[in-house]
Formats: sequence, structure tokens, C-alpha cells
Amino acid sequence: MDLERQAVERVLPRLLPAEDQWPSRLHRAMRHAVLGGGKRIRPILACLANRAAGGDPEAITEAACGLEMIHTYSLVHDDLPTLDDDVLRRGRPTVHVAFDEPTAILVGDALLTEGLLVLASYPVGPQWAAARAEAVALVAEAIGSRGMVGGQMEDLEATGQVAGDRVPGDPGVRLDLIHRHKTGCLLRASVEAGAVWAGLPVDQRMGFVRYGECLGLAFQIADDVLDSTATAAELGKSPGKDAEADKLTWVTLYGLKEAQKRLDELETEIVELAINIEGPDGALAALARTVVRRRS
Amino acid sequence: MDLERQAVERVLPRLLPAEDQWPSRLHRAMRHAVLGGGKRIRPILACLANRAAGGDPEAITEAACGLEMIHTYSLVHDDLPTLDDDVLRRGRPTVHVAFDEPTAILVGDALLTEGLLVLASYPVGPQWAAARAEAVALVAEAIGSRGMVGGQMEDLEATGQVAGDRVPGDPGVRLDLIHRHKTGCLLRASVEAGAVWAGLPVDQRMGFVRYGECLGLAFQIADDVLDSTATAAELGKSPGKDAEADKLTWVTLYGLKEAQKRLDELETEIVELAINIEGPDGALAALARTVVRRRS
Repeated sequence: MDLERQAVERVLPRLLPAEDQWPSRLHRAMRHAVLGGGKRIRPILACLANRAAGGDPEAITEAACGLEMIHTYSLVHDDLPTLDDDVLRRGRPTVHVAFDEPTAILVGDALLTEGLLVLASYPVGPQWAAARAEAVALVAEAIGSRGMVGGQMEDLEATGQVAGDRVPGDPGVRLDLIHRHKTGCLLRASVEAGAVWAGLPVDQRMGFVRYGECLGLAFQIADDVLDSTATAAELGKSPGKDAEADKLTWVTLYGLKEAQKRLDELETEIVELAINIEGPDGALAALARTVVRRRS
Repeated sequence: MDLERQAVERVLPRLLPAEDQWPSRLHRAMRHAVLGGGKRIRPILACLANRAAGGDPEAITEAACGLEMIHTYSLVHDDLPTLDDDVLRRGRPTVHVAFDEPTAILVGDALLTEGLLVLASYPVGPQWAAARAEAVALVAEAIGSRGMVGGQMEDLEATGQVAGDRVPGDPGVRLDLIHRHKTGCLLRASVEAGAVWAGLPVDQRMGFVRYGECLGLAFQIADDVLDSTATAAELGKSPGKDAEADKLTWVTLYGLKEAQKRLDELETEIVELAINIEGPDGALAALARTVVRRRS
């Protein structure tokens, strides 16, 4: 996992336009958002899944970094004053604080675009063309209106930030809908993209998809737990925002103890799924443990 | 041109998620933004260029509609209160007025994503995979930080809406930079995508690229002229916004007469480029005349 993280940290700065390249304000702000922090879970997941599916992760590091750019776009837009209004992210001021709101909107737009551009451009070579088109389609579907953006819309409706169209149903069902889409879709797509880059056909990817889905759910519950227990220094972002904003989370809905119990169950389930994919003591199982037990 | 427009108007509503599909507020807002107005210049351009390059436009109508979704995303975000703060677009209230600002941000994000998803998904079939990957890369590059989004950043710096990083140079040079990127890049990429979908290799696309670039410039100058001369009813958006916001435009910089003269020169140039591509009396020349002489 450390090797993959190092590869991502080496490649990411090279994929982003240089600070002195026109338009330099935008490029400075994009680099501020992406570099100097972040767990890089999505590209690491893609690399580990790629290896487990028989691929060569070194060939797909650039492409995997596109996932991190896309993830960062979602953070920059979610942090905007009209959305979650967050001032701290990855231990640094958010883009609209360090720069300004119009710049932050454009940074998100540009990172989403450049992230998909990276997926459409890497790996280089005609033999990879079909995998490139498939990865773009797979990821774009996961982060579109029926995926990640839809989850954010539902979240805004749940907190009453926008007028909801429908009668709020069971809050547990609604929370599940938010989690599965807002966080789960891109994590699942990152795992599946790793399998696509290894040439695995769609009917052999079910184990990867299931692993990615469960990991996404565990990731979000761990996030909710951390928001209610960790400090800003540990998190690198403002804690306690969920309770403050009256957000629907695992902790506000079921309590801390129940959330922790569900996390433990999920850990067992994910590790089993990982073993089915890669055998015992593999990197996907280790990553799952890190995600569940993380302190930031 | 009418045939292509009809095809686009038939296909676009089917490519957008239905209003009653989850999350329905987002999908209603996306359809509000895309449907019921718009000249559809970009997908029409792609279809006409495709035919001129020897392709079959009927096979690429879906893909071409992705360009309109991407164009609409740029309008929705540009109209936001923190950017151009526009209340009228295509004869209807802008998304943040008809819905709200958080929804408008998500609508833009979703339309950009779904537009690139359409480019990655159509035309269907393995024989089109390389063209799909190439179209996504071509368009994403044109609308990224060194393209359309960069042009918007430069525009915001020029109007003083954000603190500029660099000493403002010659305003004519700066205006050219804004126009070429903010409007020109996607128009040029639309023409080039049409050629890509016809299987034209990169070294035979120069005429198409040059036609697209000149048309983009003419389009923007015509826009500047209309902003200073047309009514809201003609335009379907608020006129006089440029002078009000102290925007750098062809009209504010060179005056109306000079702008009109440059438009006439460009028309001659574009028609010549069109004739080189498709012979006399072709659709690309007719489209250029429409763009230059449009009243809305």
C-alpha cells in the first residue's frame, strides 16, 4: 500500500498543470486543493484491485490519479459556502477561503474535467483505447446525477438546505441512499476501474464490485464516527459539523455504539470479500482494516 | 441544418434522466436547463462537420448531444450569483432562480459529467471504442483549465471579480485570450469531434480546426454586438450585462462599428474555409452565415 501511495504522490503533481502555466491563479488553486494532503484511497484502491485482477499497477498509476482529481473536485464543491460551508480540509484552508468562491467553483469544474481527461488519456497506446473509454464511462456514471452528485442532492434535501421534492421516508433508508451514492459510488468505481485496466470482463468483476460497495459503506460510517469523536488536528477538517448541521449520519441516527458495531461487522465482511479476490493476507484486506480503524 | 437540429431536439430529451427518476429535483433542474431553448450550435456543428468529413451524422447524433449538455453546464455555472449573476437564459429563469444556488451548482456538475459520459458511451459498439476515447480526450482538453474554464478564470480576473495574479497586459490581447478559450475551444472541439467520428486522422483535420476557431471568434463577437444592441425578448437572456459589469468585449474595446467590420471580414474567411472543406453552397458555410447574422 505504501508503494502505491508513493507512486500516486510522485505522479499526481506531474499530471496537474504547473503553477506558472496560464491561467496561473486557477492552476495554483487546483494544486492547493489536490496536493499536500489526502489519503489517496481511491487511486490506491484502483492499483491494488488492478494487481489482484492480474494487472500491472505501474502501467495504470497515471489513470488511477484521475480518480483522486475527481474526488478532490467533489470536496471543493461540497465545501462551498452555499453547500456544506467548510473552512478546513486536509489540514489546510478550503479553496474558497484560500482563494475565493468563484475560483473554487472553477477549480472544481476544472478538476472534474481534468480527472476525466486523465482517464481518457491513460494508459497511452491504441491497445488501451477500449479500456480508456470503458473507464471514463464507468466512472462518469458513478459520479453523475444517479451517482455521487445525486447523493449530494439527497443530502441537501435531507438537511433542508434545499426544498425537497418528496415526502421524506424512513430516515434509515434515506441515509443508506445518501451513503451509497455520495461516497460509495466513486469508491466502488475505483475498485472496478482497477479490474477494467487489468482486462477483466464485466461478468468476472462481481467480487470487486461487492468489495468496493462494502468498503464505501464502512468508509462513510467511519467518517461519521470520526466527525463525532476526533479533533480538527486529527481530522484535518472541522469536526462536529454533522451534529451542528443536523445532518443525517450513522451516529446521529443510531448512536455511536451501534455505528461502531456495524463497522466491526462490515470489517469482517470486507476482509472475507478481499480473501475471495486475492487470498489471505492480501493488500485489499489490509486497506479495509486501515479504512475501518482510521483516526483521520 | 434543420434536419440536424430536429434530430438533436429528438434525442436530447431521451439522453437526460427522466424527471421522476431519483433524484428527481436534480433531474427536473437539469431538464429545465437543457430543454426548451438553445440554438444547439455545437451538436449541429459536429453533425455537419461529420458529414463533410465523410461520416454518417445519424450514427453520431447521441454523441453530439453530449456537447450540448457540456455547453449547458458552462452556462449554468457562469450564471451563478458569485460569477456572472444572470437571472435570464434561453428565455427562462436561470437554474439558481428557478430552483436555488446549491441545486444550480449540482446541475452544472451533473451536466458536465453526463455530457462526458455520453461522449464515452456513444456511438455504441467495440468498433467505436477508439473514437469514443479520442472524443472524450479532445473535448475534455478543450473545456479544462487550459481551455474553457481557463477563459472564464481570465474573464473574472479582467472584470476584477477575483484578484488577478498578473499585471493586466494589453486589453486586446487579453480579450483575445478570453474569447479563444471561453467560447472558441468548445466550438472548435465540436467541429473536430465531428471529424473524429468520421474517422479522419489528426493530420487531415487542420481545415476543420481552423474553421472551428474562426467560427468561435465570430460567434463571440456577434454575442458582444448583440449584448449591446438586442432586447431581452430577442436574446432570451439579459442584454446590456457586459457594459454594466464593465466587461472586456469587442464592443466596449473597439466600438460597435469596428466589431461589425471584423464580423464581416470573419464571415468571408469562414465561408472560404467551409468551401475548402465541403465545396460551394455547403451547410458549414450556411451555418457560419447564420452565426454571424443572428439576432439572438
